[in-house]
Amino acid sequence: MIPWYFWLVPLAAIFVLYMATKFFRMMKAEPAGTDRMIEIAAYVRKGAIAYLKQQYGVVAVVFVLISIFLWLLAYKFHLQNEWLPFAFWTAGICSGLAGFIGMQTATQASSRAAFAASKSLNHGLRIAFRSGAVVGLAVVGLALLDYSFWFLVLNFFEKDMPFPNDRMIVITGTMLTFAIGASLQALFARVGGGIFTKAADVGADLVGKIEKGIPEDDPRNPATIADNVGDNVGDVAGMGADLYESYSGAILAAAALGATAFARHDNSLQMKAILAPILMGAMGAILSIVGILVVKTKEEATSRALLKSLGNGVKLSGLCILLAALFVLAILGMPNIWGIWGALAVGLISGEVIGKTSEYYTSQAYTPTRCVARQSQTGPATVIIGGIGLGMISTAVPVLAVVVGTLLAFSLAQGFGGEKDILMGLYGVSIAAVGMLSTLGITMATDAYGPIADNAGGNAEMSGLDAEVRKRTDALDALGNTTAATGKGLAIGSAALTALALLASYISAIKGTMVSVGDEFVVVNGNNIPVTALTLNDIIDYYQIHLLNPKVLMGLFVGAMLSFLFCGLSINAVGRAAAKMVEEVRRQFREIVGIMDNTAVPDYAQCVKISTFAAQCEMLMPSAIAIISPIIVGVLLGVSGVVGLMGGALSSGFVLAIFMANSGGSWDNAKKYIEEGAMGGKGSDAHKAAVIGDTVGDPFKDTAGPSLNILIKLMSIVSLVVVGITVKFS
Amino acid sequence: MIPWYFWLVPLAAIFVLYMATKFFRMMKAEPAGTDRMIEIAAYVRKGAIAYLKQQYGVVAVVFVLISIFLWLLAYKFHLQNEWLPFAFWTAGICSGLAGFIGMQTATQASSRAAFAASKSLNHGLRIAFRSGAVVGLAVVGLALLDYSFWFLVLNFFEKDMPFPNDRMIVITGTMLTFAIGASLQALFARVGGGIFTKAADVGADLVGKIEKGIPEDDPRNPATIADNVGDNVGDVAGMGADLYESYSGAILAAAALGATAFARHDNSLQMKAILAPILMGAMGAILSIVGILVVKTKEEATSRALLKSLGNGVKLSGLCILLAALFVLAILGMPNIWGIWGALAVGLISGEVIGKTSEYYTSQAYTPTRCVARQSQTGPATVIIGGIGLGMISTAVPVLAVVVGTLLAFSLAQGFGGEKDILMGLYGVSIAAVGMLSTLGITMATDAYGPIADNAGGNAEMSGLDAEVRKRTDALDALGNTTAATGKGLAIGSAALTALALLASYISAIKGTMVSVGDEFVVVNGNNIPVTALTLNDIIDYYQIHLLNPKVLMGLFVGAMLSFLFCGLSINAVGRAAAKMVEEVRRQFREIVGIMDNTAVPDYAQCVKISTFAAQCEMLMPSAIAIISPIIVGVLLGVSGVVGLMGGALSSGFVLAIFMANSGGSWDNAKKYIEEGAMGGKGSDAHKAAVIGDTVGDPFKDTAGPSLNILIKLMSIVSLVVVGITVKFS
Repeated sequence: MIPWYFWLVPLAAIFVLYMATKFFRMMKAEPAGTDRMIEIAAYVRKGAIAYLKQQYGVVAVVFVLISIFLWLLAYKFHLQNEWLPFAFWTAGICSGLAGFIGMQTATQASSRAAFAASKSLNHGLRIAFRSGAVVGLAVVGLALLDYSFWFLVLNFFEKDMPFPNDRMIVITGTMLTFAIGASLQALFARVGGGIFTKAADVGADLVGKIEKGIPEDDPRNPATIADNVGDNVGDVAGMGADLYESYSGAILAAAALGATAFARHDNSLQMKAILAPILMGAMGAILSIVGILVVKTKEEATSRALLKSLGNGVKLSGLCILLAALFVLAILGMPNIWGIWGALAVGLISGEVIGKTSEYYTSQAYTPTRCVARQSQTGPATVIIGGIGLGMISTAVPVLAVVVGTLLAFSLAQGFGGEKDILMGLYGVSIAAVGMLSTLGITMATDAYGPIADNAGGNAEMSGLDAEVRKRTDALDALGNTTAATGKGLAIGSAALTALALLASYISAIKGTMVSVGDEFVVVNGNNIPVTALTLNDIIDYYQIHLLNPKVLMGLFVGAMLSFLFCGLSINAVGRAAAKMVEEVRRQFREIVGIMDNTAVPDYAQCVKISTFAAQCEMLMPSAIAIISPIIVGVLLGVSGVVGLMGGALSSGFVLAIFMANSGGSWDNAKKYIEEGAMGGKGSDAHKAAVIGDTVGDPFKDTAGPSLNILIKLMSIVSLVVVGITVKFS
Repeated sequence: MIPWYFWLVPLAAIFVLYMATKFFRMMKAEPAGTDRMIEIAAYVRKGAIAYLKQQYGVVAVVFVLISIFLWLLAYKFHLQNEWLPFAFWTAGICSGLAGFIGMQTATQASSRAAFAASKSLNHGLRIAFRSGAVVGLAVVGLALLDYSFWFLVLNFFEKDMPFPNDRMIVITGTMLTFAIGASLQALFARVGGGIFTKAADVGADLVGKIEKGIPEDDPRNPATIADNVGDNVGDVAGMGADLYESYSGAILAAAALGATAFARHDNSLQMKAILAPILMGAMGAILSIVGILVVKTKEEATSRALLKSLGNGVKLSGLCILLAALFVLAILGMPNIWGIWGALAVGLISGEVIGKTSEYYTSQAYTPTRCVARQSQTGPATVIIGGIGLGMISTAVPVLAVVVGTLLAFSLAQGFGGEKDILMGLYGVSIAAVGMLSTLGITMATDAYGPIADNAGGNAEMSGLDAEVRKRTDALDALGNTTAATGKGLAIGSAALTALALLASYISAIKGTMVSVGDEFVVVNGNNIPVTALTLNDIIDYYQIHLLNPKVLMGLFVGAMLSFLFCGLSINAVGRAAAKMVEEVRRQFREIVGIMDNTAVPDYAQCVKISTFAAQCEMLMPSAIAIISPIIVGVLLGVSGVVGLMGGALSSGFVLAIFMANSGGSWDNAKKYIEEGAMGGKGSDAHKAAVIGDTVGDPFKDTAGPSLNILIKLMSIVSLVVVGITVKFS
């Protein structure tokens, strides 16, 4: 039943995880620095672990509640698969584990990277990059392992289907719903982590830098440890969970669409269509390691040359993946091999275009961000107007890249099924999403080293290392901004493609649901059709999923509104949490005598606690929106309303996410550009204006913006999970 | 052929225009103030007229170019009605005329209102309000006159149709395309006026207030006249054209849908369905006058009581309109009378909810804006984060009001046609849009007095009147902020409803186009159907206008992106234009010796010229997007892509517009709240932070935000006009 080539997937997963531990051990073998450095790192690690413990506790409660709901849905109302209440836990746990591993690695790496940077820039970079690779490989490896496990379990237990093709549709469809665990975990990690890190950051800056006039990362600042913890829980653990979710969503959606699109074909062909995206993902994971190992740096290279070398590693991995994918497809003997391969290539290239666009708009090496920096000369208002204008304009190219990519992938894959086969085309789109994320192992390595370098800088500052060391870690951190923008671009670009595939899966799932709620015949276009014989077009007609149906249009409105509401709530949450942090930091300076002259140690743990508590409280409300709204809309507006909701959240959320990420990135780098000496440099009025822009951008780019891609997919998957309620009660 | 009750419309129009001239003459009869006041007012008037001249010149060139395009479309390719190349001029001219009348009135009224305010607050308010009424009535009267004219012309000339019902579909459909003139004019007026006013405002403030430390509206500031001109061209002429467009769009779309929805019914019933919305509009115009006349104020009333009195006038008008509409429908003997009346009432109430929500989020009397004001204590960054969060959250209620309103209006009206009659339901939605705008005559009067009061304040300041007078005009101006938010809410709310109706008109127009491009039979769901027998659902099926068609989805993406791109371009335009203004003002202070000690007069005209020129250059690019994108999308993605485009621009644009209007309004009033003494009052650090928030909000609420509703409709109408190209070439 299980074809031999399936076993390549768990093998690849184990190999990838083995490599991750190897890189981890290599990093651990490096010297951990002076006693003071080890002490500082321990503070940060303790804070981060305390946060994650708290976070996972809250998430566990939410998971238990949702388990109960899913249990009722499955066992009481028979509207969902009976594995779901348990299976979504493994996805959640793997995603959480990826975040935890990332955070463990990052907090171990920071003092080592700082110590290595005291030898040379390259030493520091290598440690940070190798540690980043641990995160990337853990994400990819755990995801592949989780699917392999459930694929085997479901194949073993789900046997009572008359036709093997229907069976595979049920198995892949069920596996797709499991992704709700990963999405939920990711949303909490991104929103909670985003609130934590920005509350600590803003709080530390407003009191420490502005009121007390002490430098960034000064150990006298009570919020400085919280700030460094924030980098780990937001930018490492949050990003790890986020990309785990993106990767899972893309591959599982492609598998589910493969099953549906090839349902009318031979069973062994259907199996190939299902496993092809998973195999290509596994291949990508292994070839990412090739890229990681190939990256070599000359001892005297400049930091820009290093960045280029990283970029070459990614490009090499991408090229290898393209070749290997062709090989995989040929071995499988897939039909329309060039079409499917083309879709994969289109995805990879669109991802590259989105990443390059982010770089163009957010890097101080190009005109747009320099223009924002120039506007700081006329004050904070013009900087902010300029950054918002830039962010809005920057949405054009990524949207067009996704539009062109989708249409190309759709037509290339459709070639096989005949012109009207929508599912075959959408299978191509989902393959494009897999292609976009296929280099994840290495792109995430280049991403994750940013926050590690940032923390290394904090460690160097607090341990009183040479100013030269701090300068080197700052240089590494600045490069990290560019690679982080690329990572966010991939996450949101792949979200757009994956969400399209989820939309298709949703409509496909309706048929199965109609059968299970007891519908036997429905009238479509005047004909009485048995439910089991309904085509995709029949379902579209029956539920009037067209744009003149006011329910669809109203769903669009609500979806668009929800992405704004979600952003507004999480932005305000950062504001509120930051205000609490400001109060606490002021209190400590006032009440703990001797902080400023180094005779007393501030209470770092209290600041971590406040940020942790605020993040936990504030993350619930925006997350609740994502979970509850598809249920409410489903009951009130029915299937057509839900489809509209998904379309509205997808289109608006996608554009909004790019806008927020690029505005925020641009303000950050405009500030850095001025700090490098432009417009009067550090301390000038222009710099002060740019700092204000950067502070406004913080919740844009690190809280609301990167959560939107998860929101879009979580809403889609929740819709998919509750499709039974929607069909039955509306 | 023409039923007797039609004649009520031009009669009402003439009566309304007569009343407008009466109010104008009443205002003119008031004393114009001291010589200095007359001199200042003349400067402003000259500047405003110079701007409008220039603006209309540019618009005329664009109109000529579009005429040529439309002429080719109609006469060369036979893809549009032959009246269109000429008829769209009258709409454009009427809309421009409404703006011109508004501006003439406002510039005449400012010195009179200032002079009257030196007697009492109420005197000032009465002049400002009556002058505002001139604008409101001119808009409504001219619009009704324009439709009456074309209804008669088309009825007289378009006779060669075999069936009277088809004939009315052609006539109303043609009239709807004429609205492109009004939409174009409005977009230019809003974008151009918005850029002008904000460039002048920001320029005057940055150099005058901040660099030179002279107060607002000081005659020594070279940009002060330009700033006052800006209020007239942006907030009066721009708003006049905007609401002319909204009013036209709503009524013409309702008439066109009436013709299509009732096509299968008796011809006289169809005629009633067409004329009912126009008649209700005419009734609303007359009853607005009742409201205007009833507003009476006690001599010693507080400004808040005056606002309440204005609100009562609007409510009275609304109630009268509801009663009168029922009467009209009964006289006409419309079927489903309660359903149609209910749709009208739903529209009126939704409009009220949207207005109240804007008031709640933007007025300093309520918690949200006070919260933003409080955030100014921690600096500009937190004010801006707070305002953005507030604006995003504030989108929820208006969207839900429109969603509930649409679904209610849809179901109420659908009652008559049977459950599946989409067109009948959409007719109800378009009636709701008419209902929302039915009190326009009076709501616009309450709107337009804001900028008049603002100008009166400028005049008082520059003529050296008592500080007491300035305080009174400031009080009037502050009230105006609230009423302006209501006006913007109505414009965007009605745009959402009207755009739905336009979507339906678009799909209806496809059938006619298919006939004219020579299609005879098409295959729908496997059946060969003659084009003339196609139903709405057939067309939806044939062009696959459903949400799984990737072309529809990609259209959604592009539509959502275009609304962001449009905002980004216009926000950046303000930034660039303001920078030019800053340079010029600095130059004058440097080169013209004696400005500061009042021995030399600054060159006001040069500043007006710079703002004018910048506005003209910068308004072309965003406007071009609205015109060209539906054509490109139509050719590349076909009918389904265009429908997606309309849906995407509508949903995202609607939410984005509310966000920008409310964020901007809230920052403005948070500043005012602090100036009233909160958080340390004028001159405190909190005040400085709030001023920065207000400056960021300026292009939000006065340039990009209010243009979005026009963008949405213009894109829809352009799509409708070029439907022939889309059907033929895609």
